[in-house]
Amino acid sequence: MIVVMKSHASEADIQAVIRMVEDLEYSAHVIRGVERTVVACVGEERGEAHSLQHLESVSGVERVMPVLRSFKLASREVRPEGSRIIVGGVEIGGPRITVIAGPCAVESDTQVNGAADGVKSAGAHLLRGGAYKPRTSPYTFQGMEDEGLVLLENAGRRVGLPVVTEIMDAHDIELVAEHADMLQVGARNAQNFSLLRRLGKIKKPVLLKRGMATKIEEFLMAAEYILSAGNPNVVLCERGIRTFETATRNTLDLNAVPLLKEWTHLPVLVDPSHGTGVWSLVTPMALASIAAGADGLLIEVHPDPLKALSDGPQQLKPKRFAALMAALKPVALAVGRTL
Amino acid sequence: MIVVMKSHASEADIQAVIRMVEDLEYSAHVIRGVERTVVACVGEERGEAHSLQHLESVSGVERVMPVLRSFKLASREVRPEGSRIIVGGVEIGGPRITVIAGPCAVESDTQVNGAADGVKSAGAHLLRGGAYKPRTSPYTFQGMEDEGLVLLENAGRRVGLPVVTEIMDAHDIELVAEHADMLQVGARNAQNFSLLRRLGKIKKPVLLKRGMATKIEEFLMAAEYILSAGNPNVVLCERGIRTFETATRNTLDLNAVPLLKEWTHLPVLVDPSHGTGVWSLVTPMALASIAAGADGLLIEVHPDPLKALSDGPQQLKPKRFAALMAALKPVALAVGRTL
Amino acid sequence: MIVVMKSHASEADIQAVIRMVEDLEYSAHVIRGVERTVVACVGEERGEAHSLQHLESVSGVERVMPVLRSFKLASREVRPEGSRIIVGGVEIGGPRITVIAGPCAVESDTQVNGAADGVKSAGAHLLRGGAYKPRTSPYTFQGMEDEGLVLLENAGRRVGLPVVTEIMDAHDIELVAEHADMLQVGARNAQNFSLLRRLGKIKKPVLLKRGMATKIEEFLMAAEYILSAGNPNVVLCERGIRTFETATRNTLDLNAVPLLKEWTHLPVLVDPSHGTGVWSLVTPMALASIAAGADGLLIEVHPDPLKALSDGPQQLKPKRFAALMAALKPVALAVGRTL
Amino acid sequence: MIVVMKSHASEADIQAVIRMVEDLEYSAHVIRGVERTVVACVGEERGEAHSLQHLESVSGVERVMPVLRSFKLASREVRPEGSRIIVGGVEIGGPRITVIAGPCAVESDTQVNGAADGVKSAGAHLLRGGAYKPRTSPYTFQGMEDEGLVLLENAGRRVGLPVVTEIMDAHDIELVAEHADMLQVGARNAQNFSLLRRLGKIKKPVLLKRGMATKIEEFLMAAEYILSAGNPNVVLCERGIRTFETATRNTLDLNAVPLLKEWTHLPVLVDPSHGTGVWSLVTPMALASIAAGADGLLIEVHPDPLKALSDGPQQLKPKRFAALMAALKPVALAVGRTL
Repeated sequence: MIVVMKSHASEADIQAVIRMVEDLEYSAHVIRGVERTVVACVGEERGEAHSLQHLESVSGVERVMPVLRSFKLASREVRPEGSRIIVGGVEIGGPRITVIAGPCAVESDTQVNGAADGVKSAGAHLLRGGAYKPRTSPYTFQGMEDEGLVLLENAGRRVGLPVVTEIMDAHDIELVAEHADMLQVGARNAQNFSLLRRLGKIKKPVLLKRGMATKIEEFLMAAEYILSAGNPNVVLCERGIRTFETATRNTLDLNAVPLLKEWTHLPVLVDPSHGTGVWSLVTPMALASIAAGADGLLIEVHPDPLKALSDGPQQLKPKRFAALMAALKPVALAVGRTL
Repeated sequence: MIVVMKSHASEADIQAVIRMVEDLEYSAHVIRGVERTVVACVGEERGEAHSLQHLESVSGVERVMPVLRSFKLASREVRPEGSRIIVGGVEIGGPRITVIAGPCAVESDTQVNGAADGVKSAGAHLLRGGAYKPRTSPYTFQGMEDEGLVLLENAGRRVGLPVVTEIMDAHDIELVAEHADMLQVGARNAQNFSLLRRLGKIKKPVLLKRGMATKIEEFLMAAEYILSAGNPNVVLCERGIRTFETATRNTLDLNAVPLLKEWTHLPVLVDPSHGTGVWSLVTPMALASIAAGADGLLIEVHPDPLKALSDGPQQLKPKRFAALMAALKPVALAVGRTL
Repeated sequence: MIVVMKSHASEADIQAVIRMVEDLEYSAHVIRGVERTVVACVGEERGEAHSLQHLESVSGVERVMPVLRSFKLASREVRPEGSRIIVGGVEIGGPRITVIAGPCAVESDTQVNGAADGVKSAGAHLLRGGAYKPRTSPYTFQGMEDEGLVLLENAGRRVGLPVVTEIMDAHDIELVAEHADMLQVGARNAQNFSLLRRLGKIKKPVLLKRGMATKIEEFLMAAEYILSAGNPNVVLCERGIRTFETATRNTLDLNAVPLLKEWTHLPVLVDPSHGTGVWSLVTPMALASIAAGADGLLIEVHPDPLKALSDGPQQLKPKRFAALMAALKPVALAVGRTL
Repeated sequence: MIVVMKSHASEADIQAVIRMVEDLEYSAHVIRGVERTVVACVGEERGEAHSLQHLESVSGVERVMPVLRSFKLASREVRPEGSRIIVGGVEIGGPRITVIAGPCAVESDTQVNGAADGVKSAGAHLLRGGAYKPRTSPYTFQGMEDEGLVLLENAGRRVGLPVVTEIMDAHDIELVAEHADMLQVGARNAQNFSLLRRLGKIKKPVLLKRGMATKIEEFLMAAEYILSAGNPNVVLCERGIRTFETATRNTLDLNAVPLLKEWTHLPVLVDPSHGTGVWSLVTPMALASIAAGADGLLIEVHPDPLKALSDGPQQLKPKRFAALMAALKPVALAVGRTL
C-alpha cells in the first residue's frame, strides 16, 4: 500500500500514520517528495491487510493506493502456459476453438432435440440450454426446471455432446451436477459469493460469466472464490457489460479478452448472443471474439426463434449458426487456431 | 406493443406481422405514417406476451417498443396513498424519517454494543449490522455468521432497537428471520431471483437494495418477485450505481428517489455510506436524500472506523453520526417531515 | 509517481527503470516488498513529467500510479476560504444561495420577457436563456443567435437581472461578452480546450458545465484551462452525467457537490433541469442540491413549456418555479444559508 | 410519435391530447388497449415535430415515444451499396482495408519522418499525426501547431502517403485543409456542432470520431451536421466509450461496427490505440475490428514510445506495427477483404 499525505499534512500526522502502519505489522518507508510525502507500507498486502485502506479516514491522509492486484490463484503467474479444462471429454483452452451452442431455455423435448441436431451437425462441441432461467420479470417463463434438466441431458447424449446449464441456487448444485457436464453461473450471480463458494466444493467445471457491472479485476476475484475453495476447473465468459449505449442490449467488452489472457491462466470464452442482444450482430462479433484471442464461444441457437419463450431476438436459426461456423473457420486459422 | 416497420417494408411484410400478432391473440391496428407504418398490438402485454418482442427478428420490422412498464403490484396506482411497513414496531414510510444505523459488519460483542449505544443515543430507529458479508475478495473478513447474528440481536434488544441484517443465502432465511426484524438483500443479490422468490414466502419485512447496474424499472421488477410471491413488506433502498466516476465508490442516484415515489407505493430509503464510500460525504448526502423526498436513511456507524474489518473509509464515528442527526432535523422539518 | 514492478521483474529490469527515472531528472527510491518491488519517483510531477507514465510500456513494469491530482490553481489549498464570483453585481459563492433561471432558448421577445417577469417576481437572481443552441439534430431549432442575444439582454435590463447565456464558438466571444454578464460553456464543450483557453483571456465570469462523461478531476482540469490563461472568474455547474439509467435524461451526480467543495475553492451550482430531464423531478432535486451544499441553482423556466422549441419536458412554468423558490427557502435556512 | 396515456387518464385528458396533436398539424389515431390508451401521431416526425415530445408534461400522459431514428442523409437507405470516400487518391470503404498510422503528436522533424518511414514500409495507406492536441491538462504538451502541420505534410509527401490531422478550432480549418488531405474531429469535439457545421462547408474528407459518451444514434446525428451542410465525405471512427471499467483507458465498442454498417452507408474505421490505451492490446483488437467488419484502422505508431510527449503507453514501435500488419493480412482475407 502507498499512503499519500495531504500537502499540508503536519509532521505529527506523518508520524501518526507511521505508528498505525507499524501497529498493523507492516514496515513503513517514508519518501518526502516536492509536493507530497508518501508512506510506502511493506508486508503481505492481501486479506486483512486491506485494513490499511482505512488510513484514508486519518487526519492528513489524502489517499491510500493498493499496489497489488488482489487475485492470486487465478493469476497468470501461477501457470504461465495457461490452463486447459476438460468438460465431458472436450478440452477448453487448447489450440482448438470450443463452441458451446444451444437454446437460451429448454422449452420442450422437440425444441431441445431440434436445437441439438442443428448445433451438432454444424460442428459445435458442447450443447447448452437453460432449465432454470433468471428472468427480469416474475411474470415471464421461468424455465422447465428439473424436467428441463433431464431433457437437456438426454438430447446431449443422443447427439453425443456434453451439456452445460445454468445454476441459480446453491440448493440445486447436487442435482444439476448429476445431469450436466458443466455448471454455468450467470451474470446476475457473478458476485453471489455463497453460490461461488459452494461451487468450489465440487469438481465439475464451472462456466463463470462476467457480471453486468463487474470490473475485470473483480471478475477474477469471483473466480478466486471458486478456485480458493478447491475447484480448479473454471472457465471465464465475457458477455457484455452495461453502458449508456441502448442500441444494443449490452456492450461486448472484447478488450477484456486479450487483457484476461495476460492476467490469468484460465480459458476465456465470449457470448456474443447476450453481448449484442441482436441476432444480426452475433456472427460478426463471434468472428471478432476469436480474432481478439478468445478460446471459444457461447452461441444461442433455437430451431424457431420467433416462438422462443425467452431472448428470441438474439437466438440464431440452425441454418444461420451453420453459416457462422463456416465463417469462423478461416478466422480461427488466420490467428493460428483450429476449429 | 408497438411494431415499427422499416421504411422499405413490403405490404407482404406488413401482412405477415399482422398474422403473427393475431396468432399471439392480440388485435393488430395498422397506422400508415409518412415515413413508416406502425402496427399497434392490443391485448394483455405482460408475461408471455413478451413474445411479441421477438417480432424484432422478422423481415421488414425495424423495432418493437413496449408500451407498458412491466411492474404491477409495486405500481403506485395500486396504492396511491403509499405503503407503510412496520418493522419491529417501527413504521417506515410515514411522515417520520426512519434512520437505520450501525456497523458494516458485526465484529465482536464490544464493537456491536458500542455501535448500538452510539446510534441509540443519537436517535436512530433501527440497528443494522452484517453477520454474513459479501466481500469482493475471498481473502478478506467474511463476517461472524451465526455468532454475529446472535450478538446483533442481543445488542438491539439491550438498547431497544429492532435489528436489520443482510441475507446472502436462501438456506439461511429461517435462521436469520428468527434473529432479525428485517432482512436486507444486498446490491450484489438484487437480481438473485431464487433468493427473492423465497423471501416472498415469509412475512418478515425485506430491505431491498438496488443493484450496481440495475435500472429503476428493473429494481421495481426485483421487488415484484417478492411481492408476487406473497410478502407485501418491501422497503427499497438506493445505494449508488456504478458509473465512470472513480472519485467516489459509487454514484448515488438521488434522481431515483422522487422518481420511485412517483412510480411505486413502496417506501424508499437511501444509503449514503455505500453511495459515496467516503465518510466526509455521508452527512451532506444524507441531508440531500431527505430533501429529495426519501423516507429514511441507512448509515454505517462504527465505534472505531480505523479498526473496522470492512468498509472503514465510509463508516462514521458515533460522535459524527450524532452531528448528522442534529443536522438532519431542520432539513426534515423544512420538507414537511419529522425525525 | 509510483512505479510498480511485476513479480517476476529481474534485477536488470529494476536497474533499467531507475536509470530511466533518473534520465527524466527525478530521483528514484526503491522499496522491496514481499511480493513486489516499487520505485518511487521524487520530483515535480505535473506537466511533461507525465512522461513517467510511459514507463508502463517498459519490460518488467506492471503499473505506474500518479500520486498527485493534476489541478493546481483550482485547488482548495490555493484559497481555503472559497472564491466569491461577482456577476453583474450579484455574488456567487457567498452565504446566499444564487438562483439562475430562465428559458432553455430565447424564442421571441414575448417569450423571453414572460420568462423574465416570472423568474424575477419569484426571486431569481440572474436570468438565463440560450441564443445559440447545441442541438443533437441539425434539423431542430438552433437558436435565434445574435437576435436572441439582444432580446435576452433587453429582458434582463428591463427586470433588473444580469444575464447568462451559452457560448458555443470562440468566434462569438467578443459579441456575447458585450451583451451578457456571464458566459456559459455547455456540457458538450466541457473539453473544447480551444474555447476554454480563449475564455481565459477575457475577464467576464464563466459558468462551466460538467461534461456528460467528465470525471470530477477532469472537470477541474477544464476549469484549470480558463484559470491558467488568466481569468479567475469561474463557476462550476454539475448537470448530470451519462449512465445506463434511461428513466431520467441524465444521472444528477450530487456526490460531486460536497466533493468539489472539498477539492476546489470555486463556487458550485447544480442544474436539476438537465440533470433529470423531467419537470416533476426538478423541485425535489433542487432542494437536494442545496442540502448537499451547492452554492446555487440553474433552473429552466418557460412561460409555456408545451410550446417550447427545445427541452419542453424539463422546463417549469413560472408558477411552479415560484413554488420551488418557496420550498427552497426553509431548506437553505436548514443548512445555514439564505436565499 | 406514440403518446402513451396513464392508466387513470380521463377521457378529457385524451381529448386534450388529440387537440394538441392536431394543433401541431399531425393526425391523431387513438388505440384503446386493455390497460392503456395510446395516441399515434401521423406526420413528418423530424425537426420541429420534436415538439410532440413536450406532450410528456401534459396531464394524463405517461410517455411519448419517437418512432423514427433521427438521422436521414447518413442512413443506409440513402445508399444501400455503401459510400467510398477518396482521400488523397486512397479509397476508404471499398474491399481493401485502409490503415492510417503515425504518431499521436508531431514532435519533431526526425520523429515524424521516423514514424512515416516505419508506417510506409509496413504498408500503411495514410499518415496521421497531431499538430494541435486536445490534452486534459493545460500543463502538458499542446502540440507543435502550425509548425507541426508543415512537418507532417512534408513527411507524408516524402514517403508518398496522404496525411490526416486533427482540427480543434473552426478558426484553423482553412489552414489545416491546405496542408492535410483529411481533417479529423476528435472525441472531445464530437458534438461541437459549430465546428461540424463549418466542416460541412468544405469538401475535404472528414474523419469523425465517436465521443466518449455518444450513443451510436447521436454519432450519426453528428455526421448528419456535416452531411446536411454540404460535405458528403465523412468517415466514422469508433475509438472506445467511457464505462466503469478502469483496466483499459476506454471500452472499445466493437458492437458499433456491424451496427453502423447496417444503419449507415458511411465507411467505419476503428482506433484500437485509444480504444484500449495499452499497447499490448492494440494488435488483438485491430484484428478483432477487421473481423467485426470495419473498413480500416487508425493506429498510433511512434519511433520511440518511451520518449513520446503524449499517449506513450498506447503507441506501437514501427517493428511491432509491421508485425500487426502481417497478422492483419490473413484475417482480412478470412473475412473477404484485402489489405
